[in-house]
Amino acid sequence: MTYTVAVSGASGYAGGEILRLLAGHPEIEIRTVTAHSNAGQPLIQHQPHLRSLAHLTLEDTAPEILAGHDIVFLALPHGQSGQYTDALGAVPLVIDAGADHRLVSKEAWDAFYGGAFHEPWAYGVPELPVGDGTQRDRLRGATRIAAPGCNASTVSLSLAPGVAAGVIDPSDIVSVLAVGPSGAGKSLKPHLLGSELLGTANPYAVGGTHRHIPEIRQALATASGAESADIRISFTPVLVPMARGILATSTAPIVDGVTDAQIRGAWEAAYAEETFVQLLPGGVFPRTADVLGANTALIGLAIDRAANRVTVVTAVDNLVKGTAGAAIQSMNIALGLPEDTALTTNGVAP
Amino acid sequence: MTYTVAVSGASGYAGGEILRLLAGHPEIEIRTVTAHSNAGQPLIQHQPHLRSLAHLTLEDTAPEILAGHDIVFLALPHGQSGQYTDALGAVPLVIDAGADHRLVSKEAWDAFYGGAFHEPWAYGVPELPVGDGTQRDRLRGATRIAAPGCNASTVSLSLAPGVAAGVIDPSDIVSVLAVGPSGAGKSLKPHLLGSELLGTANPYAVGGTHRHIPEIRQALATASGAESADIRISFTPVLVPMARGILATSTAPIVDGVTDAQIRGAWEAAYAEETFVQLLPGGVFPRTADVLGANTALIGLAIDRAANRVTVVTAVDNLVKGTAGAAIQSMNIALGLPEDTALTTNGVAP
Amino acid sequence: MTYTVAVSGASGYAGGEILRLLAGHPEIEIRTVTAHSNAGQPLIQHQPHLRSLAHLTLEDTAPEILAGHDIVFLALPHGQSGQYTDALGAVPLVIDAGADHRLVSKEAWDAFYGGAFHEPWAYGVPELPVGDGTQRDRLRGATRIAAPGCNASTVSLSLAPGVAAGVIDPSDIVSVLAVGPSGAGKSLKPHLLGSELLGTANPYAVGGTHRHIPEIRQALATASGAESADIRISFTPVLVPMARGILATSTAPIVDGVTDAQIRGAWEAAYAEETFVQLLPGGVFPRTADVLGANTALIGLAIDRAANRVTVVTAVDNLVKGTAGAAIQSMNIALGLPEDTALTTNGVAP
Amino acid sequence: MTYTVAVSGASGYAGGEILRLLAGHPEIEIRTVTAHSNAGQPLIQHQPHLRSLAHLTLEDTAPEILAGHDIVFLALPHGQSGQYTDALGAVPLVIDAGADHRLVSKEAWDAFYGGAFHEPWAYGVPELPVGDGTQRDRLRGATRIAAPGCNASTVSLSLAPGVAAGVIDPSDIVSVLAVGPSGAGKSLKPHLLGSELLGTANPYAVGGTHRHIPEIRQALATASGAESADIRISFTPVLVPMARGILATSTAPIVDGVTDAQIRGAWEAAYAEETFVQLLPGGVFPRTADVLGANTALIGLAIDRAANRVTVVTAVDNLVKGTAGAAIQSMNIALGLPEDTALTTNGVAP
Repeated sequence: MTYTVAVSGASGYAGGEILRLLAGHPEIEIRTVTAHSNAGQPLIQHQPHLRSLAHLTLEDTAPEILAGHDIVFLALPHGQSGQYTDALGAVPLVIDAGADHRLVSKEAWDAFYGGAFHEPWAYGVPELPVGDGTQRDRLRGATRIAAPGCNASTVSLSLAPGVAAGVIDPSDIVSVLAVGPSGAGKSLKPHLLGSELLGTANPYAVGGTHRHIPEIRQALATASGAESADIRISFTPVLVPMARGILATSTAPIVDGVTDAQIRGAWEAAYAEETFVQLLPGGVFPRTADVLGANTALIGLAIDRAANRVTVVTAVDNLVKGTAGAAIQSMNIALGLPEDTALTTNGVAP
Repeated sequence: MTYTVAVSGASGYAGGEILRLLAGHPEIEIRTVTAHSNAGQPLIQHQPHLRSLAHLTLEDTAPEILAGHDIVFLALPHGQSGQYTDALGAVPLVIDAGADHRLVSKEAWDAFYGGAFHEPWAYGVPELPVGDGTQRDRLRGATRIAAPGCNASTVSLSLAPGVAAGVIDPSDIVSVLAVGPSGAGKSLKPHLLGSELLGTANPYAVGGTHRHIPEIRQALATASGAESADIRISFTPVLVPMARGILATSTAPIVDGVTDAQIRGAWEAAYAEETFVQLLPGGVFPRTADVLGANTALIGLAIDRAANRVTVVTAVDNLVKGTAGAAIQSMNIALGLPEDTALTTNGVAP
Repeated sequence: MTYTVAVSGASGYAGGEILRLLAGHPEIEIRTVTAHSNAGQPLIQHQPHLRSLAHLTLEDTAPEILAGHDIVFLALPHGQSGQYTDALGAVPLVIDAGADHRLVSKEAWDAFYGGAFHEPWAYGVPELPVGDGTQRDRLRGATRIAAPGCNASTVSLSLAPGVAAGVIDPSDIVSVLAVGPSGAGKSLKPHLLGSELLGTANPYAVGGTHRHIPEIRQALATASGAESADIRISFTPVLVPMARGILATSTAPIVDGVTDAQIRGAWEAAYAEETFVQLLPGGVFPRTADVLGANTALIGLAIDRAANRVTVVTAVDNLVKGTAGAAIQSMNIALGLPEDTALTTNGVAP
Repeated sequence: MTYTVAVSGASGYAGGEILRLLAGHPEIEIRTVTAHSNAGQPLIQHQPHLRSLAHLTLEDTAPEILAGHDIVFLALPHGQSGQYTDALGAVPLVIDAGADHRLVSKEAWDAFYGGAFHEPWAYGVPELPVGDGTQRDRLRGATRIAAPGCNASTVSLSLAPGVAAGVIDPSDIVSVLAVGPSGAGKSLKPHLLGSELLGTANPYAVGGTHRHIPEIRQALATASGAESADIRISFTPVLVPMARGILATSTAPIVDGVTDAQIRGAWEAAYAEETFVQLLPGGVFPRTADVLGANTALIGLAIDRAANRVTVVTAVDNLVKGTAGAAIQSMNIALGLPEDTALTTNGVAP
């Protein structure tokens, strides 16, 4: 069958990537695309790379326009999707690419976001461990899905197997991420100008203020099996001169007494059957180019006994596996379609 | 007076940068430039940006050609400068931009480099704490100077004040660096091709294998005042698409009981009088563009109580403060010249 | 039915892109991948982005290994494919991504390439005008196909409609191209190092020496309907810091007396029915990001009466529409498959 | 003696570069920096690379604040400097980095800019031919100077010698420029975002609409010795992913009968004595990296007899030789100081 779809925020980067992927999906009809200030204009004017969708015109992002579809994607700034939820009650499947439905803890929401708190939805990172299963179990048949934060899912996928297996200590995680600016959206901010980003590395949200921190803590606590687990993370993102991509270097202390085989075994076991999360052989580490345009998270693992830390380097395309690809992978699961429909593991490189 | 200078490795990146800076030095006459396979060719063919030195021709890198100058710079691959040392015994000042004379510990040399071990020279990072003083004290009047490794000096400058003051615990340091490829020199290696570096982030030497690790441990042990201090570091460099620059994010646990004021005070005290190492105000963090072409290390400091870690982000131009600028600053000190001669604090941005 | 395929040069950029596209082709089985010095190694070691082909091992590029497939792709340096031609006589379809079978004129071959001259094959730019038809006519049922040079096909597609319609004068063309370095392959040459390409624009083959010049002249002469047409082109490629992409700015004098409508009409008529070559509306010009990973050539056209020239700006992904995509599009035509099988019009942007 | 200086537009890119260069000028005291919306803030907040000027605070850009200095630099958007001219009547030297005082022809101003027309000032490209002399003659002792447009001066310097000598035909020039986005200033426009510029080439002002066209025509007409000369130019700028730099490829038809020696001789004669405009040897062409941060224009010249065109490739740092360096070089001339004070010929590369 064919599902009708509406995509809000269609003139932005996340919305554009959802459309790029859906355009190749055989079970989907993209019927409606919406925007705020750009409503009334052709989609192609704002997404000139989406040639196959040149016939679409942006409509207003209004509940009555989004309603009446089988599936609605919300690709809006955080704090905005919540207001649409009630009005979209009759829509069979709603997928939010924003943050509004990710956090379980109102306290964490208040501390890092603020504004109205909304109930958490099924979390769109299917491969993350949850007890004996994975988040995939919660996504099957789901009607409301929260796509992950791109940095959050990258770090969570990096460390969750080790946390779940008890081979690393999650109370002293350090993550530093090289990230492309597309994760920040099309906002007209001085520090996002090309002149400010070309040829330079630029840290931001240093010192524990980034909004993805509570999302990582939540995902790893869930993986650990103890919601009250002591999860602490020093998290620093650094903008580097590439339009897309996240290369996350994450380290955590090795638990006393575990062997190298136990450590590596934890990651191998977690992802052995996964298509889109792949552990690389020992001594091999990923580049973001390897996953450009792909839904793949590539993970390289090193055991540094001199530093007594595991180092995990993970490459993700922030707009695909980090956002739009995760959303569509989760949609496929919710609808009972083959999980990889319209998604590729192969990156566009060089 | 004017000092005559010879620069070996003049067709490479480090040699080129030494020449660029020396070209503006009023007390220096660049008399001789040497290379290996490129000997006999005009310097300008290999360094087309050094217009004021278009009259120079590359000679062979032979001891008899280097001898007879007041100052000799060695900008050679590690393991090669050592062989020239004896033959240059009569040269009043020799500055090695390579690794051969940096390490005090033969054991560390053997573990990370191998080959003949050479005696350590005065270490060319003047601002680093050493007991009640700094490395500068050892550089005054020095006749043999080892310029630092670019990554090593960046991380050492980042953390040394906190280690020296005892406010951070050096036994669990984590450093992740976004670095430009010029630090790797002009080597013709596939992973250094433009197609492999443009638009992507690329980790290397993951898991404790990078050769700058023992140099950092040595510098921080010296800063701590105890050569036997327990210094451990998880160190991961990531190549990002900028020709030059290092942005090092370094974290270390906060020692129990110290206050925010004590922490910040450690860095303030260490660098208050320094021209080329500057602590930025709270909440401000540097970009590599801010130091491009400059001899400045800019340091941003965050105290993350939730993670119980200090996060230090430091920006350096790997070819200037990381290598050639450090060499010339050290030369100025050794010769008793104003320390900032031919060096600028102002970066070329955007 | 399923066609078996062998791809030579599989560890290079062109070979890698052929594989990336073929991996999504429902009628193709990639059975054999070959290389020279890398034979015996896993493909994934050289093409870490091709996750779905991780099971393949590189074999030697020997005629007996390539023979026995339904289709053979040759992605070898120019001058090398010719030697395989005879040995592959029994292969139903051979597609050469190199230059050996592109040129009709031995004189042009001798002047720009040299070495053994090989007979010209059907030219893999289906949309190019040829008399009343297009090159597509020659590709239907073809058994030997020469994929185009990336710069050549980009410029030829830019100007052929105007030449064919007689609205521009092809005797004084000027083309300047911003190109990514992947077009030069994985060659270990100093000027292709990342440090030499990041943050800089770098011209090469200035003054009429680039090897794609005779290919453009041939394509435009064919389009004009007169092999002896006076086609002259000032052609300058400039390497810019993007891994892939060609943005070609081409201008030619307006023929006296033609109207703006006649000019624009020439391009509209030529490409109105084409999927992969699209004329943009007046005042709109393409970016290379819009075609990244896509088989699309996007063309913007301006009529500059003050300069008496038409300016055509065309964006192409050099590895797709410029090479591998053209090869596969041509293969589809030759085999009678839908022309767009395994090819997309949508770029990966931003 | 020391001249006091005020710089308006000090929070922008042109103003910042003027300050970076002036900071190293021994005869200049930077007393006042001004801005519009950022007035009252520390300069270092907007120009974090200008460490030596960290003591300065931005004041309002008001005539009474600018007046009372020996020299005033206006680095304001075009159309704004004109309004200050009258109020600054008593200032001994005013240098405008904007367009308001560049054009001689009111008609050209109206066609490309519009708004109030202002009288032309001495044109700040000292090396440009003017009859038997150069623009330098007009700059000696000048009290009002118009710094050039960056693209305009680059193209003018590229072709003026050939036009002045009558060896190329200026009625059919074609110029295509690869340019960095800093030339467009800190404007918050969507197409200047990093995500839109990284990894892509992006043309703009295609088809004869760029505002630097009349400035080029004026400069070349002056060089030709005939204000009424028929100068026509097809001009296309292309944004490429580098923060600064212009690589201009310019071609013009060869006049019948002139020899290669006459052609090359024209450029050699024009620039033989120049420090900052250098003709490279035959077969050598410049990269923008070679002039980064330098006041040098590097020119490569090819004679393409097959195309009957001269091709000139010129590299300039748009913010230095294209703007701020030209302003300060002109200031030095006007004041009778050594022309190269505070300016370097050596680029920062790689």
